[in-house]
Amino acid sequence: MLFFTQCFGAVLDLIHLRFQHYKAKRVFSAAGQLVCVVNPTHSLKYAPTRCAAGQTSAEQGVLPPCHNHEAVHDPQLVPCTCPLFSCPWQGHLEVVVSHLRQTHRINILQGAEIVFLATDMHLPAPTDWIIMHSCLGHQFLLVLRKQEKYEGHPQFFATMMLIGTPTQADNFTYRLELNRNQRRLKWEATPRSVLECVDSVISDGDCLVLNTSLAQLFSDNGSLAIGIAITTSKVHNTEGEM
Amino acid sequence: MLFFTQCFGAVLDLIHLRFQHYKAKRVFSAAGQLVCVVNPTHSLKYAPTRCAAGQTSAEQGVLPPCHNHEAVHDPQLVPCTCPLFSCPWQGHLEVVVSHLRQTHRINILQGAEIVFLATDMHLPAPTDWIIMHSCLGHQFLLVLRKQEKYEGHPQFFATMMLIGTPTQADNFTYRLELNRNQRRLKWEATPRSVLECVDSVISDGDCLVLNTSLAQLFSDNGSLAIGIAITTSKVHNTEGEM
Repeated sequence: MLFFTQCFGAVLDLIHLRFQHYKAKRVFSAAGQLVCVVNPTHSLKYAPTRCAAGQTSAEQGVLPPCHNHEAVHDPQLVPCTCPLFSCPWQGHLEVVVSHLRQTHRINILQGAEIVFLATDMHLPAPTDWIIMHSCLGHQFLLVLRKQEKYEGHPQFFATMMLIGTPTQADNFTYRLELNRNQRRLKWEATPRSVLECVDSVISDGDCLVLNTSLAQLFSDNGSLAIGIAITTSKVHNTEGEM
Repeated sequence: MLFFTQCFGAVLDLIHLRFQHYKAKRVFSAAGQLVCVVNPTHSLKYAPTRCAAGQTSAEQGVLPPCHNHEAVHDPQLVPCTCPLFSCPWQGHLEVVVSHLRQTHRINILQGAEIVFLATDMHLPAPTDWIIMHSCLGHQFLLVLRKQEKYEGHPQFFATMMLIGTPTQADNFTYRLELNRNQRRLKWEATPRSVLECVDSVISDGDCLVLNTSLAQLFSDNGSLAIGIAITTSKVHNTEGEM
């Protein structure tokens, strides 16, 4: 009797998992892609911008770590700050990945095409959803941020950063795609290097930007699915299909 | 001698036209498409929103023209206001096109795929760029608006409206595409009916939205090229390529 109860429980678990998987899959149409459920990181208390502080140091003749990488010949030894805003960590580029994994518990996923499923979109700004994405011999960092650029009007900003130098980043193209409720939005660009500030990319709006009502139209039950694809782009092809 | 001078003048004109055409074409990659240069309409002085006024009338039991179309059986006889905000014109749906052409001098273009080249993007908000687009047996209205949704932060909003009823609009899908500076942005959605308020679509942000810095990245010498394509979509295909 116990055996049958356990079997029944296992079957129920399988059905539940299948349903969860189906729910995650159906928000994004492409077949055969890895769906990664990404929970929000804790709300970050935004201090006065680190980049601005960096500029002040530069004016005083002391270059901040994210601006003096051009003098270093080995990209892995370029001094680098943690791309997460609230973290004061500094180190070399080669150890950023282990810092992000160990200190911030950020997941790393394999594959050129994945679906990033950000949960709890209703949480108040500022909130970040972050994963690392390993493909084509490099690690990339996808940052989705809910932020009030204009007070009382939270927006969502999504960008892809290469954990590498700007020269290495120029060899890739990333694509973010939202697809739901008879609307489709695609953003394609060259990833930025983590040596540049994530915050300045987001504050410039040089990324995928969604207002709250559009994010709601694209989200399903409080979760937003973003299809991610990364390709190499030695010669950027403007004629090709997106 | 006069003949040769005239010939030389004609050749220079041809070279100039060819250069202008090339300039317009190269901002958008697709070949064989009609490029339409769209000058801004005069800056509109935005009064308190007409839709809000309509809602007040509805509360008082008097439905505004854009809300009582469901009771009329012939779509061509549906009462309709002018989709341009500052215009107080009211009439039937069947005469909106002639009103827009005659009163507002809005161009009408033929073809399922065209390039909308909006000039003078630097002009202060509010500014509209508008064309009519005739294809698949219907007329569509493309509205690009520069507006300060948040004071001091102008944004660009682009949407496509069908000059027809919401039921007719559901049969189509439109696509807007920007492509420049190693960035590509595509927006695909069902057009809205001109019986709905253009202003509410834009204020909801349920359209293609660009901040100023992104608009600058996509523009060339002060002009923004938007590729437009319209297709029928009786059954909305979520699996198809965008």
